[in-house]
Amino acid sequence: MNYRGVLGHEFVGKVLRSDNSALIGRRVVGEINAGCGRCDACRGGLARHCAGRTVLGIVGRDGAFAERLSLPNSNLHCVPDSVPDELAVFVEPVAAAYEILDQLVIPSENRICVLGDGRMGAIVAFTLAAEGFAVTLGGHHREKLGRLAALGIAAVEERALAPGFDVVVDATGRSEGFNRALQLVRARGTLVLKSTAASSAAMNLAPVVVNEITVVGSRCGRFEPALAALASRKLELRPLISATLPLEDGVRAMELAATAPNFKVLLRPS
Amino acid sequence: MNYRGVLGHEFVGKVLRSDNSALIGRRVVGEINAGCGRCDACRGGLARHCAGRTVLGIVGRDGAFAERLSLPNSNLHCVPDSVPDELAVFVEPVAAAYEILDQLVIPSENRICVLGDGRMGAIVAFTLAAEGFAVTLGGHHREKLGRLAALGIAAVEERALAPGFDVVVDATGRSEGFNRALQLVRARGTLVLKSTAASSAAMNLAPVVVNEITVVGSRCGRFEPALAALASRKLELRPLISATLPLEDGVRAMELAATAPNFKVLLRPS
Repeated sequence: MNYRGVLGHEFVGKVLRSDNSALIGRRVVGEINAGCGRCDACRGGLARHCAGRTVLGIVGRDGAFAERLSLPNSNLHCVPDSVPDELAVFVEPVAAAYEILDQLVIPSENRICVLGDGRMGAIVAFTLAAEGFAVTLGGHHREKLGRLAALGIAAVEERALAPGFDVVVDATGRSEGFNRALQLVRARGTLVLKSTAASSAAMNLAPVVVNEITVVGSRCGRFEPALAALASRKLELRPLISATLPLEDGVRAMELAATAPNFKVLLRPS
Repeated sequence: MNYRGVLGHEFVGKVLRSDNSALIGRRVVGEINAGCGRCDACRGGLARHCAGRTVLGIVGRDGAFAERLSLPNSNLHCVPDSVPDELAVFVEPVAAAYEILDQLVIPSENRICVLGDGRMGAIVAFTLAAEGFAVTLGGHHREKLGRLAALGIAAVEERALAPGFDVVVDATGRSEGFNRALQLVRARGTLVLKSTAASSAAMNLAPVVVNEITVVGSRCGRFEPALAALASRKLELRPLISATLPLEDGVRAMELAATAPNFKVLLRPS
């Protein structure tokens, strides 16, 4: 997005200042898209598709790798006491995973493949599994696959996957992911794109037509189902936390986050 | 499809030989995909997605630019007397247009854009308009656009189109069509791919994710709604017939079909 500024869009924090006094002091998470409030998208409750939106740490709004950030009141969701800080930071990516279930009606007997053993792939796999779906995760990093398998996810080497999945979620973050997902989805199946990295690569869309695939782009989701799933403990994501560092070690945290087999690295402001 | 053989997959004909004597002498059109009859797709009524299928004039089965062709009995549909030969040859592409309505539930107030002023674009536009949808067709050929406009289609220069369509159908047959369609569809809208020509071009799928577009590949359809629409005369496609030539002038017919502002060129066996 050609963004320059403070990074970070997954956070939990306490409200310091607000013109809504009921919010002050509350522990909150925040939806990251801030709409104009006036356009059709915003008035239809879809500020996350407002053409003039800012996006926390991504478009025109400093992000969460900081001691303070600002968001509109309407973006904030109070966090129930039953959800500790280290789980509350997962609300944003879990909401992105639940977005798939907001967009699609997936029959419960469907076989789902998640491509990608990174953070997003793991969170999508845990979320869909928590909702009762049969999920197979395919990846390249043996250590990560081993850790996910130990946590109950059917995680296998991607090249061992056989075609025929009803739904394939591309969470690889790589442009090759799309073509591989096309190989793995059945005729008339659904391919969910959870990755914007598939940019400007050479792709052959002919199989989408010949096999009548539905490709669904999927981005941010509503926070409500994510908060509910974390509060009810049907989603236990603490094993994905590989390290927690103080904010001043942010660069080191970024390095750790880029190192397999780490998943999530948390930052704690001092 | 790397096919070598007799071309042609849109036809009407009379049954000369069949082990179903009730078919002999009947005027028929034929679905072009012939499945194995044994796989899950075939048993589920979706022979057009059988992995081992032959396809008339496209995959492993000589096509309709001939005096005789063969298809399984189960592919044939008898043509009502109210549908003359010159309309019956439209059943196959009209079925492909109705496939869009089989795959999607499109709210009646949706604004639909059809990209492409070729044969498929025109037939999709006429079909969706006949079903009551507000359709705008965008193309590049001024003469074709003029002819379509005279037939009641809102046909305009493609570069004059403004974004914001609920549904965009890419029937351009060109790889640029996909990216242009992405520009024209609204956030959370639907892009229908009716073109396999978008092969291996450099494409940026990031907007699919960011704007949560649904891309639906769409190919052949059931013949029933197409036959019904032509029989009821809610679809009048005779103005799209630019010429009718004898079969022995097939090469000349191909040349004519490739020349704007021609739409359909029919072949008549002697």
